[in-house]
This record gives sequence, structure tokens and C-alpha cells, in this order.
Amino acid sequence: FLILLYKPSSLSPPLCLSQDPYFPSICLPYIFPPCISRGLSLSVSLRPISLSPPSRSPSNSLSLSLSRSLIVSIRAEKGGSPSLNTHTLWMFFKVRFELRNWFHKSTLIVPRRGSVAMLQVNCVTFPLPGEGPEQQLLKPNDWSYCDYFWADKKDPQGGACMPGFEILLQKQLKGKQMQKEMSEFVHERIKIEEEYAKNLSKLSLSPLAAQEEGTVGEAWIQLKKSLHDEAEVHLKFSNKLHSEVEKPMLTFRSDHFKKDLKKYDHHIADLRKQLASRYAGVEKARKALADRQKDLEVKTQQLEVKLSNKTEEDIKKARRKSTQAGDDLMRSLDLYNQTQSKWFEEMVTTSMELEKLEVDRIEWIQQHLRQYTTLRHETDMFNQSTIENVDQLLRAVDPAKDRDLWVKEHKTGDVRPIDLDI
Amino acid sequence: FLILLYKPSSLSPPLCLSQDPYFPSICLPYIFPPCISRGLSLSVSLRPISLSPPSRSPSNSLSLSLSRSLIVSIRAEKGGSPSLNTHTLWMFFKVRFELRNWFHKSTLIVPRRGSVAMLQVNCVTFPLPGEGPEQQLLKPNDWSYCDYFWADKKDPQGGACMPGFEILLQKQLKGKQMQKEMSEFVHERIKIEEEYAKNLSKLSLSPLAAQEEGTVGEAWIQLKKSLHDEAEVHLKFSNKLHSEVEKPMLTFRSDHFKKDLKKYDHHIADLRKQLASRYAGVEKARKALADRQKDLEVKTQQLEVKLSNKTEEDIKKARRKSTQAGDDLMRSLDLYNQTQSKWFEEMVTTSMELEKLEVDRIEWIQQHLRQYTTLRHETDMFNQSTIENVDQLLRAVDPAKDRDLWVKEHKTGDVRPIDLDI
Repeated sequence: FLILLYKPSSLSPPLCLSQDPYFPSICLPYIFPPCISRGLSLSVSLRPISLSPPSRSPSNSLSLSLSRSLIVSIRAEKGGSPSLNTHTLWMFFKVRFELRNWFHKSTLIVPRRGSVAMLQVNCVTFPLPGEGPEQQLLKPNDWSYCDYFWADKKDPQGGACMPGFEILLQKQLKGKQMQKEMSEFVHERIKIEEEYAKNLSKLSLSPLAAQEEGTVGEAWIQLKKSLHDEAEVHLKFSNKLHSEVEKPMLTFRSDHFKKDLKKYDHHIADLRKQLASRYAGVEKARKALADRQKDLEVKTQQLEVKLSNKTEEDIKKARRKSTQAGDDLMRSLDLYNQTQSKWFEEMVTTSMELEKLEVDRIEWIQQHLRQYTTLRHETDMFNQSTIENVDQLLRAVDPAKDRDLWVKEHKTGDVRPIDLDI
Repeated sequence: FLILLYKPSSLSPPLCLSQDPYFPSICLPYIFPPCISRGLSLSVSLRPISLSPPSRSPSNSLSLSLSRSLIVSIRAEKGGSPSLNTHTLWMFFKVRFELRNWFHKSTLIVPRRGSVAMLQVNCVTFPLPGEGPEQQLLKPNDWSYCDYFWADKKDPQGGACMPGFEILLQKQLKGKQMQKEMSEFVHERIKIEEEYAKNLSKLSLSPLAAQEEGTVGEAWIQLKKSLHDEAEVHLKFSNKLHSEVEKPMLTFRSDHFKKDLKKYDHHIADLRKQLASRYAGVEKARKALADRQKDLEVKTQQLEVKLSNKTEEDIKKARRKSTQAGDDLMRSLDLYNQTQSKWFEEMVTTSMELEKLEVDRIEWIQQHLRQYTTLRHETDMFNQSTIENVDQLLRAVDPAKDRDLWVKEHKTGDVRPIDLDI
């Protein structure tokens, strides 16, 4: 195995990452080695990363470094003997990388000839870009959930890695929260409308200028009444806001919904755990095989030194054990791949389902916010009509008519005085 | 003089007014005597009253009694002698009437032949209806103030009589009060609008659902912003209400106006006082004449009994004094009539002025209440437009676009897992 370890002193000066205490080492999502020179140093070039980092700023800083060629010193562990190489035909690079808060443990798997180079991240195996057959998106041009959440994401605040699926679930929970908050907002609006209506209604009952008479008096009474009508309009608005916007927003996707999400969550998480344990199984089987192979190699060397019956018997036994270890590895590989298949399937199905839920949510919110604007429009229109009667009576205001009415009621006598005559 | 005194016992039974302690006697605004039979009883018929009573209900009850012929017993005071009749040619009926709270003291003046019968009420002399040349209204078909407030009005709650002019002044003061109250009403409305705007504005800054993303997020931000716009609309409404309705209403006709009314009031009241004192002068002169005439009559009778120089001299002296008293009466009559003319003139001029003021007031109120409705209409229209941007963004809501944006930002990796291969 070759363990690639980053040494700060070997960075090219322009990056100077070693001088920042927060960058104890540099993250390399994966390294594609154009040529591997066995020894203590290795020239590698970084290529654009397909597993994007979780947040934008580390991504940018990483892109900067990617544009440069880095000389990284490597410590080569004792490689396999030629016989080991020909026997197993695989090499293992363990790449450990850390960049600020972004953290990944992954394994670069250099394939046997004719096979695909792959990278193991959190017990999931991905092809290296440019390696193997080109992957077409499951739903091209659609930015579907099922295509973009295969990798895990490191929480930028440190802590554990978050599966891509978890991000989809969080989106759903956030959507639910948003909808609840919109409902609260509408509730506040309702309270404002109710208060406004209450005040208008109260004012409409005010006795102010109630003694105004005639056509002006009538117009004034209507004007006061119009405040009551306005109040009714706003009360109707608030009632409809409650029944047609606030309440549906609050009750859409009940607590049952959160339970459903939990179920999805547990189901996918269980598969990931299973995947990890199966991967551990593969690692264990691989180590066992390596041990067996080493044992076989040792015994083969011993055979070269001194030929004995017992040794030949040992070699046979060791070769059998090695073959068995190879079979065990193939079995655990098979188990691992079955589980990964199952996980893959569930990821696709469930993320499509979540995607559908999100479309529903957005359309549902759109529909209810449009209901809000419709009610607002209605309110303005109804409000217009509250003033129509007032306008009509104001047009009918007639000082002459008012004088007629008032004089008829209050006149004291139309007989004019005449000269006193005795 | 004939003093008409009502005796309860002589009422026709259907009226039974005598049985009500509140009706110690019946009011007769004036009595038109078709034939006067000298003696202790007189048949009179009541006719509709031109001096309408101050409040409606007594008027109605009076109308009831007017439809009947009443036999009223009269006590005839010793009438004037034939010579007195030929000398002065007038008869005096003092009619005292009281009806519940309605009270008038008036004098029916039966004219000398060829002259007009008249009624003196509160020192103003009116023609009897049907007597003298028909009076045309000064402004026919106009219900003008100058035609209908000649008589005084008894306060229905008892107390003093109120000149018709006082009613016109009270109308003005009430108009001013109404206008002030309308202004207060508008002020209350302003406060409601300000409160509403404050609440809307505050809510528009709420962080609720601020984390909503994509096109829904944009529509939501606009929806919240629209509340701020609405608040602005209502604030503008309240500001304009203040400057274009409340303030003009409050300041229209300042306190100066009340002083002007006081001036009118004093001027007319002074003329009425003068009229009363002049009328008293007439009464005094008339009494002096009557005394002189009685004295002359006594002396003439004495002459018939015993003829003496001294008596003849006395008669001459008494006749001279009587003639002088007649001249005095004519002079005070003249003074009275001059004052009544002046009062008449001022009544016409001032009431026309008040009439004009009332027309102005009504048109002015009409104009400012129309301004109120205009502002209300504007508010509704501006309100409509606050929601237009929200509508536009809601139409643009697109779940697919939102997914694109969100996936682009949050995706973890589009490389799908592949089978592990060793």
C-alpha cells in the first residue's frame, strides 16, 4: 500500500498553506497520479473535483490550489513484491486530506488492468472521473434530486459527515417550517385586519355630528355607515384569510409528515450502516488475503532455501488458504455490492419521492399565496363599493333643499309685521 | 275693552280641557269674530293658526280643537261710550291663552273702519290673516330665511320667548359645531389609519419564512414588501386626510365667526328692546288719551247737569288736553313704526346674510367630504397596485426552476456509486 501523506514544507510557495495554523494539511479529494515514481517524492497534478465541497468558500480556495501543480512528498510503505503484484494486480493509495473544516476519508482504488479506478468515500465506491464508461445522468437536464446527492457532505461547522440524502430531508423539514412561518405571518396579518375593523366599526358608531340635518346630514350618516361597511370588508378579509390561507398553511402536511420523513431517514441510514459493515468485511477479507499471500510468499522463499517435504506441504496448505481467502474476499465483495445496489435503488426511489413532495409544496404555497392576493384584490374592490353610496349622497347635497327642510321645520311665522295703526 | 276670558265650564264637552289640571285655560292665538253680540256670551269659531306653535305635538292637539266651534263665555268690561267709539274707532280684545308649555301674550287689535285688524305679539304688530292686502312672500318658492322667522318662538321647556332671529343664529352655531365634530371624526379616522399603517409596516419587517428560497422565496419577499407598500398607502391617506379634510374643517370659520354672530345678535336684540319700549310708549299714550277722553266725557255730562262758566272752561281745557293726548299717541305710534321698520329691514338683510353663510357652509362641507371619498378611492386604487408585483412573482413561481437553483447550490456529487471491484 502507498499512503500519501501531505507535508507542508513541500508545498509550492504561492500557496503557503503551511503558514496558516488552520491549515495543518491540505485536502486532496482524490489524486490522479499520471506517473508513479517509486521513491520518497511524487509529482502529482490536481484536477477539477467532481465531489464538490459542502460550502462555497472552501471550494473556491480549493479551486485556486487546483490550478497549480503541486509537488507532494510521499512516504512509500514497503510495496508488494512482484509476485504479490502479479497475483492480486491491485494497488491501494490511501489519501488522507483535510482542508479547514472540510474533511473526507477516502480511498483511491487503483484497479487491476482493464478495470475501473475507483474511490471509496465513507464506504461507498465511486468511479474516478475519466475512468470507466461515462456516466449519463439518470434524468438529464432535470436537476433531479436522484442525480446530485450521491456523495456525503461535511458539516462546515465540523462534526460528522452528512449523507447527501440527509440534505434532501432537511430541505423537506425546512419547507415545512417555512410553510408554518408563512401561516404565522398570515395570522399576524389577520390580527391587524381585525384590529383595524374593530376600530373602524367603533368609529362608525360615533355620535359625532349626528345632529347634522338635511341632505348633508344624510350624506354624513352614510359616510359614517361606510366605515362600518369597510370594517365588514376587512373582517371578511380576515375571516377568509383564516379559513383559506392561514389554516390550510398550518395544517398542510401534518405531524404525520415528519414521521414519514423519519422513516425514510432510518431506512436509508440503516442501509448506509449495513454498507459500512459490509465494507469492513471486505477490508477484513482483503487483509486476511494479504496475510495469506505474505505467508505463501514467505513459505515459497523458505522452499527456495531448503527443500523439504514439510515445506512443500506447507506451501500447498498456504496456497489453499490464500485461495480460500481470495474466495472469502470475493464473497464479501458480492455482499457489499448487493447492499450498495439496494441503497442505490432506495436512494433513487426516495429522492424522486421527496422531489415530488417539494413540487407539491411549492405549487401548494403558490396556490395559497395567490389566494391571499385574490382576497386582497377583492377587499380593495369591496372597499371601493363602500364609498359609492356616500358619493351618491354627496352629489345629492343641495343647500336649497336643506334650507327648505330646515325652514319648514323651524319657521316661526311668515306673516310680516305691519305698522301699528290705532 | 272687551277682555275675552275662557271659562272651563263653557267648553263643549268633547274637548273636556277643563278636566286636565295642566290646561287651566285654552290658548287662542287669535280669534276671528264673525259677529260680536254684546252681552255675556259670544259664539266664536277657531281657524287654523298662522303662528305655528313651537313644537309639533301641541300643534296637533290644537288643530283638533280648531276643527270645532266653541261657545266661549266672555265677560264684557264696560265698553267705551258711543262718543269714545266714534272718537277712537278701536276696540281691544285682550286674549290670554295658555296651552300647556306654549304661551303667548298677544293683543288682537280690531281696527277702525277701512283699516286692518292686527295682532300685537311681544311688541310686534302683525296683520290678521284674511285682513288687509294679501302679503306676498319676499322670496316666493324659496323658503328663504327672510320670510319665515317673523314671529317669536316659545321655548318648549318653558322660560322666555325666543325671537325667530335667535333660531337662525342657533342654526349657525350648530353648523359650526357640526363642522368641528366632523373634523374630530376625521381625526379619529386618521389615528386608525396610522395605527393600521404602523402594524402593517412592522409586520412587513418580520423575519418569518425569510429562508424560503428560489422563485417562491422571491414571491414571498415581495408579498412581505407589499405590506410595507400598503402601509405607505394608508399613511399617505392619513396625511392627506389631515391636510385636506381635518385641518380645513377645523379652521373653516374661526372664532371670529362667533363674534360676528354675537354682533348680529346684539344688534337685532337691541332693536327688539327699543321696539318694546316704544310699544310701552304707545300704550302709555293710549292710556293717557283714554283718561283724557273719560275726563272730557265726565265734564261734558257735568255740563249737561249744571251749566257754568267754569265747567265750560274745563271742557275746553279737557278737550285740548284730549287732543294733545291724541297727538302724543300719534307721535309715539310714529316712533314705534319707525323702529319696527328699522327692525324689519335689519331682519331681512341679516337673515339673507345668514342664509348665504349656510349655503357656503353646506357647499364647503360637501366639497371636503367629497375630498374624503376621493382620497378613499385613491387609497383603494393604490392598494390594488401594491399587490401587482406579488401577483407577477407568484405567476413566475416554478418548482422546476426552484429545484434547479437549490440542487445547484446544495448538490453533493453526481457521480453514482459503482460496484466495488478488486
